[in-house]
Amino acid sequence: MSKITLGRYMWERIHQVGVDTIFGVPGDFNLQFLDSIYEVKGLKWVGNQNELNAAYASDGYSRVKGVPGVFVTTHGVGELSALNGVAGAMSERVKMIHVVGQTTRAMQSNHMMIHHSIGTKPDHQQYNNASRGLRYAAAELWDVKNAPAEIDRVIRECFLKSGPVYIFMPLDLSAEEVSADLLRTPINIAPEVDTNAQNAAVKAIMDSLAVSKNPAILIDALAHRFDAVSETRELVSRLRVPFYSANMGKGVVDETDEMYVGVYNGEISAPGVAAACKSSDLVMTIGYLPADTNSGGFSRKLETQKTIAINPFEVVVKGELFPGTNIKPLLAALVFALSDESTEKQAFCEEYKQHREQIANISSNLTKPTLPPPREPLDASAKHLTQSWLWPRVSSFLRPGDVLIGETGTTVFGLCDISFPRNTRFLAQIYYGSIGYATAAALGAEIARVEVESAKAGKSNGSAINGNINREKSNDEKGGRTILITGDGSMALTIQEIGTMIKSGIKPLVFVINNEGYTVERMIWGAQQSYNDIVPTKYSHLLPLFMHPSPEKSFHIAKTKAELSAIFEKEELKNPETLQLVEIVVDKMDTAWRLGSQLAWRGERAREYLTKEGFVDTYGGWGLESVPSEDVKWS
Amino acid sequence: MSKITLGRYMWERIHQVGVDTIFGVPGDFNLQFLDSIYEVKGLKWVGNQNELNAAYASDGYSRVKGVPGVFVTTHGVGELSALNGVAGAMSERVKMIHVVGQTTRAMQSNHMMIHHSIGTKPDHQQYNNASRGLRYAAAELWDVKNAPAEIDRVIRECFLKSGPVYIFMPLDLSAEEVSADLLRTPINIAPEVDTNAQNAAVKAIMDSLAVSKNPAILIDALAHRFDAVSETRELVSRLRVPFYSANMGKGVVDETDEMYVGVYNGEISAPGVAAACKSSDLVMTIGYLPADTNSGGFSRKLETQKTIAINPFEVVVKGELFPGTNIKPLLAALVFALSDESTEKQAFCEEYKQHREQIANISSNLTKPTLPPPREPLDASAKHLTQSWLWPRVSSFLRPGDVLIGETGTTVFGLCDISFPRNTRFLAQIYYGSIGYATAAALGAEIARVEVESAKAGKSNGSAINGNINREKSNDEKGGRTILITGDGSMALTIQEIGTMIKSGIKPLVFVINNEGYTVERMIWGAQQSYNDIVPTKYSHLLPLFMHPSPEKSFHIAKTKAELSAIFEKEELKNPETLQLVEIVVDKMDTAWRLGSQLAWRGERAREYLTKEGFVDTYGGWGLESVPSEDVKWS
Repeated sequence: MSKITLGRYMWERIHQVGVDTIFGVPGDFNLQFLDSIYEVKGLKWVGNQNELNAAYASDGYSRVKGVPGVFVTTHGVGELSALNGVAGAMSERVKMIHVVGQTTRAMQSNHMMIHHSIGTKPDHQQYNNASRGLRYAAAELWDVKNAPAEIDRVIRECFLKSGPVYIFMPLDLSAEEVSADLLRTPINIAPEVDTNAQNAAVKAIMDSLAVSKNPAILIDALAHRFDAVSETRELVSRLRVPFYSANMGKGVVDETDEMYVGVYNGEISAPGVAAACKSSDLVMTIGYLPADTNSGGFSRKLETQKTIAINPFEVVVKGELFPGTNIKPLLAALVFALSDESTEKQAFCEEYKQHREQIANISSNLTKPTLPPPREPLDASAKHLTQSWLWPRVSSFLRPGDVLIGETGTTVFGLCDISFPRNTRFLAQIYYGSIGYATAAALGAEIARVEVESAKAGKSNGSAINGNINREKSNDEKGGRTILITGDGSMALTIQEIGTMIKSGIKPLVFVINNEGYTVERMIWGAQQSYNDIVPTKYSHLLPLFMHPSPEKSFHIAKTKAELSAIFEKEELKNPETLQLVEIVVDKMDTAWRLGSQLAWRGERAREYLTKEGFVDTYGGWGLESVPSEDVKWS
Repeated sequence: MSKITLGRYMWERIHQVGVDTIFGVPGDFNLQFLDSIYEVKGLKWVGNQNELNAAYASDGYSRVKGVPGVFVTTHGVGELSALNGVAGAMSERVKMIHVVGQTTRAMQSNHMMIHHSIGTKPDHQQYNNASRGLRYAAAELWDVKNAPAEIDRVIRECFLKSGPVYIFMPLDLSAEEVSADLLRTPINIAPEVDTNAQNAAVKAIMDSLAVSKNPAILIDALAHRFDAVSETRELVSRLRVPFYSANMGKGVVDETDEMYVGVYNGEISAPGVAAACKSSDLVMTIGYLPADTNSGGFSRKLETQKTIAINPFEVVVKGELFPGTNIKPLLAALVFALSDESTEKQAFCEEYKQHREQIANISSNLTKPTLPPPREPLDASAKHLTQSWLWPRVSSFLRPGDVLIGETGTTVFGLCDISFPRNTRFLAQIYYGSIGYATAAALGAEIARVEVESAKAGKSNGSAINGNINREKSNDEKGGRTILITGDGSMALTIQEIGTMIKSGIKPLVFVINNEGYTVERMIWGAQQSYNDIVPTKYSHLLPLFMHPSPEKSFHIAKTKAELSAIFEKEELKNPETLQLVEIVVDKMDTAWRLGSQLAWRGERAREYLTKEGFVDTYGGWGLESVPSEDVKWS
């Protein structure tokens, strides 16, 4: 029976569930077991510039690849630095494994004053306590006997709960040996299905659909997080009723589908969208996550009696709770119930024959609601770059297969307003909203994108690092690009991760909006206060700082619409061979209309503030379909 | 009775205890009460590039000024990002106030899904829980009635415990009003003195000293942290016995004093130092902090029967515990006991007349131990830059009043080996050891240094920001400079804070050692592994990236001894008018001897590793005075 170290075992297990890249920062309590990464065929190390960035990169990797993003830190100093990125993964339900290299067990038992500790008789588990409420499971390893089972358990939990888990690995323990035979039994990462619970939920959903008049579907983030994208797409296609995205659900379904209406973001939606969705007598939500920033500041009210909610672990049909379900198998069963050609589950399909007929009858009478024509912005004739022009132009720059990463702030408000080509993967931290996330997440996202593309091309060991995906294909088959769009204020927090991208040889497109500071905050408070100013930055020096191989050719700056249009047409942007950086200069008081509108929706006080400070809504009146007569109780 | 907002009250109280600068990152749950900073005369805002950097900057500010370093973050995303910097302040006992702008009380009570939260029914205090074990006190504000008292309480605790405290400020609460009259009663920041406990401890110390043969003093970090630097200096001067510093105690006492011997770092000390201190029959430690990195890897053994330990809250005399003391007043009392001219405490002084005579008799027979002459390094004749040449050369570049900041890694091992001019303030995170700390701490340190200097010059409202201290003075009165020395690997973590320095117009000298990665880690493990490589960085682009006013004149690079010597002679370095950046290129396998020696001291395995990987001790044999015959149980 051959033996391997526990460190090696951990990496093999992580690789088995589909992870090909480990992020992190080395430290003297993880160095020895970092060596084992190099022993696992197909697994590689990408070191980050700091630990928070490593967590963000892991998050980006997970969102694109659907497997956990994994990173390593060292005892205390490293693990705490990453904590905000871990909490973000918990908030946004992103699979993440945080491996912490701890002090040796002898050091811990003897409460030794080893560096990175606190006090004269330190508790080395003091930092573990800090993350206790910010993770779904933890393998607090101490004994080699149960360590493999503990590692397996938390990897499974990471998939089931879709969120962060920890592996605490004392340095000396990582060198102890376990049987290599344990690797032969794959970790079961699928949820247990309670068929009775699931059937009851499916029946209730089918019953409701069959008696509805004009049902609609609202797709949200958790469909993506719980690996139910293909089931959601299939369901949308079978039902053929109008469907909508929440902000956070963008990218899950095909926006070019004839029944796709738009982003229903409560009262802060494009003209006609809210009215259309509100006119439906039955809205089925899939993976709903109704945070303020994902619901137009809570302005999207769904009436219980008109709603089917398919949540990760339960279904609620017009107020009746069906617990014990799992979203992915539930949606698969629902698709079966809506199918008549299945032989596999014939009896099940048979049962819903009449429902199907009724539903087909309903959907055959439905067409996509007619929306008003696009509005003309007040600043349409401006030569300089404006946000009203920018975001639609970004839309036409995108192509199928692109991974689009938007930073919290101006960017996500802009991006949630535009149409995506089919198969656009959209990453943003719309609920958690930690600025700086997007830049570091783009590193992980691009590495994952290349890995996915390589695997599809049959190169299962394809590497993103200095990888060389063949791009000599027709436009539609060219594969995507990773496109980061961030603001100057946000990028400053994690700007050094651009260096890791360059060192890794990956090829993302990086757009930075230079608007002299925290424009989102200016709109909320302190429009002219110095606390909303940031460090002036000359981005032309960013690529040479990190030794980009062709810094001058790869840096682009636009102040006018014409300049940006020309940049979009460059071959380097269409098919980048190296990282490209595009600086987009806009006025510091110019923003996407959705942002101003969401703030304006808070009430008269907020509208007065915006007007007084000189913010202008390019569509007039803050584009509100309805404005509440009284201030909303936000504070 | 005039009223002020609670936000204003908080800032006024913080300003009253000596804080003139607030660091942090704005966010939508703190913007409104950031406005109040501008209302407090003499208080100013310095925004950081991210929250971890804000915590580090606050730490640096506190160490130089002796008052809390204060910074502001926003709910969740901000407060968690800073946590590692807070834990560092706890480990290193640095006064810090972390103000967190929380969601409104209504949002919290209603468990609203406000951005930055977690889950569908979020507990907004979830992040507060993460820092519970990493602070000495917290004002968890909710009711305006007790909020002022709570703020006062944690400010006092910050001084008493010398470490981090939190103020959690719900956004809406910050706007409620309190009586301005409350500001008239200053916060009592002095500890309660238990005179009986203190007298008992003083007597025991004096009794022991009086019967000793060749006492010595070992000065450590906590003397500095608990504001007992002047008392320690006075004590050293009164006793006139040989005295030593621990690594972390460097800068507390005058190293040019005739009785100063050197840094006693256990077996990892300069030749002769360990033997000299070990020959003493009574070592009095002041503010001792015996972490591995502050004790030559635990190789400094102090025998209980030969030791007086003056700790922050207790004294231990030859194993006998005297609890209930406070280091600063205790040392002051000890100085009184050693004085004969005091009229103020005549009776107290009288009591120790005989002790004083005995002690004077002892000390009159003591001289500073004779140390061997400086060793000649093997690479003395090299033209290129070597660490054996670098650190002594740095020593001669320093001048009185300088603030010297060393990063964890190569730098602190080098700096702990050199002599400082009198009144050199030395900052380093030698126990906590979070890399990246030094760069951001330098921002706070330089701002504090200018504030202290301005106050001394009678400009109590002197501002570091674009401040203009008159430098037309004699060399000795010129005042100091802030000198940061960091490694390339460490600087990467927090490099964007150089931008804040430039924006603020402060004038630190920044030295970065370019040795192609994590050299300290290479010595520990994986000398040639890629995980110890970092992103290659061309530092000449760093200043223009952040729009330094004269980037070319202010960037300097040295690969040879001659080049660095010439740089040290430049007027820009002697009396900088703007931030100066000096890149020091050294070989990636070259390190300070102390580092290799401390590792070598771990045992045969470690020595074999160092030799196998090609590390060379420039003094031969790793400069060990004694090498243990068996491996030390480190792992």
